[in-house]
Amino acid sequence: MGDNRSYFSQWPYDMRLRPFLLLLALPLAPLGASAAEPPKYKSAQEIIDAAPADAWRTLDPANTLYLELESGRVVIELAPAFAPAHVDNIRTMAKEHFWDGLSIYRSQDNFVVQFGDPAAGEAGAKPQGSAKQKLPAEFARKAQGLAFTALPDRDGWAPEVGFVEGFPAARDPKTGEAWLTHCYGTLGAGRDTAPDSSNGSELYVVDGQSPRQLDRNITVVGRVVKGMELLSVITRGPEPMGIYATPELRTPIKAITLASEAPEAERTALQLLRTDSQSFADATEARRNRRDGWYVRPAGHIDLCNVPLPVRVAK
Amino acid sequence: MGDNRSYFSQWPYDMRLRPFLLLLALPLAPLGASAAEPPKYKSAQEIIDAAPADAWRTLDPANTLYLELESGRVVIELAPAFAPAHVDNIRTMAKEHFWDGLSIYRSQDNFVVQFGDPAAGEAGAKPQGSAKQKLPAEFARKAQGLAFTALPDRDGWAPEVGFVEGFPAARDPKTGEAWLTHCYGTLGAGRDTAPDSSNGSELYVVDGQSPRQLDRNITVVGRVVKGMELLSVITRGPEPMGIYATPELRTPIKAITLASEAPEAERTALQLLRTDSQSFADATEARRNRRDGWYVRPAGHIDLCNVPLPVRVAK
Repeated sequence: MGDNRSYFSQWPYDMRLRPFLLLLALPLAPLGASAAEPPKYKSAQEIIDAAPADAWRTLDPANTLYLELESGRVVIELAPAFAPAHVDNIRTMAKEHFWDGLSIYRSQDNFVVQFGDPAAGEAGAKPQGSAKQKLPAEFARKAQGLAFTALPDRDGWAPEVGFVEGFPAARDPKTGEAWLTHCYGTLGAGRDTAPDSSNGSELYVVDGQSPRQLDRNITVVGRVVKGMELLSVITRGPEPMGIYATPELRTPIKAITLASEAPEAERTALQLLRTDSQSFADATEARRNRRDGWYVRPAGHIDLCNVPLPVRVAK
Repeated sequence: MGDNRSYFSQWPYDMRLRPFLLLLALPLAPLGASAAEPPKYKSAQEIIDAAPADAWRTLDPANTLYLELESGRVVIELAPAFAPAHVDNIRTMAKEHFWDGLSIYRSQDNFVVQFGDPAAGEAGAKPQGSAKQKLPAEFARKAQGLAFTALPDRDGWAPEVGFVEGFPAARDPKTGEAWLTHCYGTLGAGRDTAPDSSNGSELYVVDGQSPRQLDRNITVVGRVVKGMELLSVITRGPEPMGIYATPELRTPIKAITLASEAPEAERTALQLLRTDSQSFADATEARRNRRDGWYVRPAGHIDLCNVPLPVRVAK
């Protein structure tokens, strides 16, 4: 396992766990190589660790939300390229502290957590300040002008899938449209029956099997880049919808803050691997065909929502 | 929404939540229908509710495990048709109370929880009684003799996907092989580098985006049919593998019991919708093309791991 040994050593080493170590594509082992000259396969982690500085981008504070819970901070990247009107409204609501003191009021197993004002649209709803009440639906946009890094892998939900500015996305060459897809961590704006009935005040985060049937049916406004493990463990509400029977079961939201409004010292400085970088392409290929000695059958395929989007603390 | 109103009424009704109600395919609404004679589209839930008695099967207690946690019972169906040697060994270990007092010692976000003996393979490992220490790898089997209900939907990971006896599965017509797939709730047997190094004592349950790259690389032994919400909320361990830094963070296992060994009064009587029934096919089609007024664009597709496998308390 060579260079990875020191990386392993921080963990209680248990052979029974090695399948999972290897899922992280840490070890490397030649496959089908001649004894004389074994080809050098790098694991996804090795490729990411070796990525040049310009393969990383820094989160833009103007497009970054901090969802502050008792358990910690969830960092969200907004997607103004796909949902400009919603993102503008969300920025306004964050600046005006709309969500502070509200809650995560729904947690449906293998699907989403949802937060905002549980009384939205009813008597007792919290006033939304200068936020707009009516926005256009932003389900898709013109693909033209977007740098789309396509995956070669086939997808059942869309003609083409890949990444745009770090977000999992899809594209239809026939209609010329592109849209953000529902993967683990996707942030969307809940709506009523009318397509244009969301304004960004009620938000959900996907924490289950990718519900791609929602693609192009609802406005995706961003994605969680750090802190999913704080959302994914939130106690599930009762079936079928996960809405808590009593308010005390809700998870309080201390605040949702736009990073650019936070003092610099309180910001979480993160970098994301550029999805249009060679390092990202190489790491994805290393996961598509895992050649690490544990896998007896590399899949030769990867699904859009199985591609990890690496994040690190800014150097 | 007609007949569904009474079903809704048990929930705090919030228009902002309706998108998620509709994901459950509860309401029905004609789409593209003439005013004179609207076609009757049934939701998946309506189809399931109307399924005839013979569309349901009862869990076999000899193939059912109860994983007893402080928070409640997780019910697991074993898959002897795919992993006969592992299932035999697991039955033996359950009868001999191997797991009682052990723990869930790993929880990796968007991937798995893993349980058994954290000291397995090391000094201090718990003796495994009369369980076999060496089993064959059971990654795939001959498709011949299996009733395989194929999905028409294309899949990136396998030539054919569908269901066998209630389990999500895949098949390769060229090799004549079939195997169980990794979806939410799948139970597998952790192994070391050698393909035949699992014996069923260390088990994992998928609670994240379907890790289909594991298919045919590890032995799948069953799936959780009830209680996933008890596993999915377990506090995540630190990255990258989710192994807790200290033992007190582990989740204790009170017991793992074979249902046929439990007194009848203590059993959980469950029924599962047969995956080879017309009701199951119709409900899946209702989710593939949702025609309920909320969806502006039915997907026309469903992924294997997005198909819910309905469970109810036995009547």
